[in-house]
Amino acid sequence: MKHLFEKILSSRQIFKGRYLKIEQDEVQAPDGRTYVREYIKHPGAALMIPILPNGKVVMVHQYRHALKQVFLEFPAGKRDKGEDSLVTARRELMEETGYEAKDWKFLTTIHPVIGYSDEHIDLYLAKDLTHVEQKLDHGEFLEVTEVDPKDLMQLVQEGKVSDVKTQIAAFWLDKFLRGEWN
Amino acid sequence: MKHLFEKILSSRQIFKGRYLKIEQDEVQAPDGRTYVREYIKHPGAALMIPILPNGKVVMVHQYRHALKQVFLEFPAGKRDKGEDSLVTARRELMEETGYEAKDWKFLTTIHPVIGYSDEHIDLYLAKDLTHVEQKLDHGEFLEVTEVDPKDLMQLVQEGKVSDVKTQIAAFWLDKFLRGEWN
Repeated sequence: MKHLFEKILSSRQIFKGRYLKIEQDEVQAPDGRTYVREYIKHPGAALMIPILPNGKVVMVHQYRHALKQVFLEFPAGKRDKGEDSLVTARRELMEETGYEAKDWKFLTTIHPVIGYSDEHIDLYLAKDLTHVEQKLDHGEFLEVTEVDPKDLMQLVQEGKVSDVKTQIAAFWLDKFLRGEWN
Repeated sequence: MKHLFEKILSSRQIFKGRYLKIEQDEVQAPDGRTYVREYIKHPGAALMIPILPNGKVVMVHQYRHALKQVFLEFPAGKRDKGEDSLVTARRELMEETGYEAKDWKFLTTIHPVIGYSDEHIDLYLAKDLTHVEQKLDHGEFLEVTEVDPKDLMQLVQEGKVSDVKTQIAAFWLDKFLRGEWN
């Protein structure tokens, strides 16, 4: 697939906001011509599927201003600079839900926005949970809830779990609980 | 969940690049304090799962400069202004793969970037295909391929289909082919 690659001719940051940073590259495409590509630079993130001893999963309701909606999500968060995503996962699980997990399993890495961001999200299963203490970030507001995995798949089918990272995690959980993947 | 909502105090476009547009809003959060939120304004998109009479699905390999990788994807594209996403789907299926489909079924709407973009993607199943003629956009380079749905799920499990819209479409297709969803 090397013949589809584009060669970078120049690269510069063209925007730096409070949170978002945009890179603009000039590239030479397979047809030999020059094109402009723009994309968000993102540090990467981690998501966890925290499974309680009762079989339910710990999730959060969170308002997302970009869409002016409250979403049902698995806990997740951005990596601090240079941080291993498992460290992010442990930190965010504690901060957002107040749980610590002893048993962690890496599932997969996903790319949510291949058209205009270099973001990747590492997905983990988190088991053997102990409740410690929730510590939300400044300006972060969310509600923790427990959901039965069967109900979660029903919500996915009904279009009520439209956040992609959460929907993908729900499908992976479904495969695990059926014993099809391990 | 109304108590999680944020009230918009002001809203302005703070960046307009060649492709990307960023909105910056000042909001009043549930704690009564003022915060800044930034997000990409996106027109929305459509994705299709084109199923051939032989049971294989039509997919594309496409280089994505934000990640400097070639991805295996279902055909998809951005809505033109005011366009119904089914019209987008028909247009993009033809442009990217050269196929026309007579039988269309809406599946679901997903939100790929709830943290920093208002993008949504409508997913469709496209059946009863006829090959007409591929018409790629200027600066668009991709390779059409046919994939067996079983092989696709294997690739998902192995982490080789990390594009979220494609992975979600693969899971929905899996549910349909097993007769669990309809």
